[in-house]
Amino acid sequence: MRKGKTFIISGPSGVGKSTVLDALLRQRGNVYFSVSATTRDPRPGEEDGVHYHFLDVDTFRAHIVDDEFLEYAEYVGNFYGTPKKYVDLAINQGKDVILDIEIQGAIQVTSKRPDVVRIFIAPPSWSELERRLTERGTDSQDKIQKRLLRAKVEFQTAHTYDYFVINDTVDNAVMELNAIMTAEHCKPKERMEIINGR
Amino acid sequence: MRKGKTFIISGPSGVGKSTVLDALLRQRGNVYFSVSATTRDPRPGEEDGVHYHFLDVDTFRAHIVDDEFLEYAEYVGNFYGTPKKYVDLAINQGKDVILDIEIQGAIQVTSKRPDVVRIFIAPPSWSELERRLTERGTDSQDKIQKRLLRAKVEFQTAHTYDYFVINDTVDNAVMELNAIMTAEHCKPKERMEIINGR
Repeated sequence: MRKGKTFIISGPSGVGKSTVLDALLRQRGNVYFSVSATTRDPRPGEEDGVHYHFLDVDTFRAHIVDDEFLEYAEYVGNFYGTPKKYVDLAINQGKDVILDIEIQGAIQVTSKRPDVVRIFIAPPSWSELERRLTERGTDSQDKIQKRLLRAKVEFQTAHTYDYFVINDTVDNAVMELNAIMTAEHCKPKERMEIINGR
Repeated sequence: MRKGKTFIISGPSGVGKSTVLDALLRQRGNVYFSVSATTRDPRPGEEDGVHYHFLDVDTFRAHIVDDEFLEYAEYVGNFYGTPKKYVDLAINQGKDVILDIEIQGAIQVTSKRPDVVRIFIAPPSWSELERRLTERGTDSQDKIQKRLLRAKVEFQTAHTYDYFVINDTVDNAVMELNAIMTAEHCKPKERMEIINGR
């Protein structure tokens, strides 16, 4: 059976990644959207195993020691990580895996899984990103300017990604993501069983 | 403006490449299907510049000397080649170029243009290829066996291609080719102008 592939999708805050990924998951079957583990407390409405795998700190630390994360990081006092277990389960079931992680995490995953495919989602322009962050209405002007600066810093590493998708329209970004996922399964190394098996 | 990319499409005789490429060209705009130059005489109904660019031997030789071919070969006493001129014109107009050439030609083109994308179209199985060659009704059983043997030899080099498309159904093969062409335009090196230009 065809194995799944792992796709890392990164992009700055406000680029519209969640909207694009929601639309992609509606269009494309056989995809597992990775659920992170975290030591932070569940917020109202958050379900264990759906929004996060909620772990206590000792369990999280033990998982680090046992090399059970593809990547992990600490952020304002809490740990966040991508458990290998569910990713590998999905891949072995033939499902593609999407990891919605940032550049530091992408580097960690790539060192453990060099065959991972990395996709960077970029805004059509900085002014458009600023417009989207402002329209979202969740951040102060000061915070928006900090997010923009951070986006510009992240953007300096975008050329290290395998693919670069511009979210000008959701339809176009989803079309390109779909094409990338399909094309990656056409690489000869993905089809060696067929190539060798005849 | 976005420049076009060059895609080499190879595959054994009988795999259904023409059918797949016809369907692809109907679906996908902005594509130039490269017309070869040849020194052989036109057959009834063949138009210069449409089916081939018909050249006399001296002109063809001069083009070789002037490095005007991406690849060329001699086949049963006639020369065949891919003129650079029309390929470059199309690329500069933003059109993707499809070269329907064999493995020897693919190697020549790749040495001149390392950024070319090579796609191998394979039959779902050898028995299916034999069935298609038989159904076509144009070859003797002896010729079919020779074509099959040649296909198996070519197939040994298929892993050197960038992509490997299995023509199980025309729809699926076209979908995969379309995805590959779209995905290749999402590579960071294709979008450096955007990456650097903001």
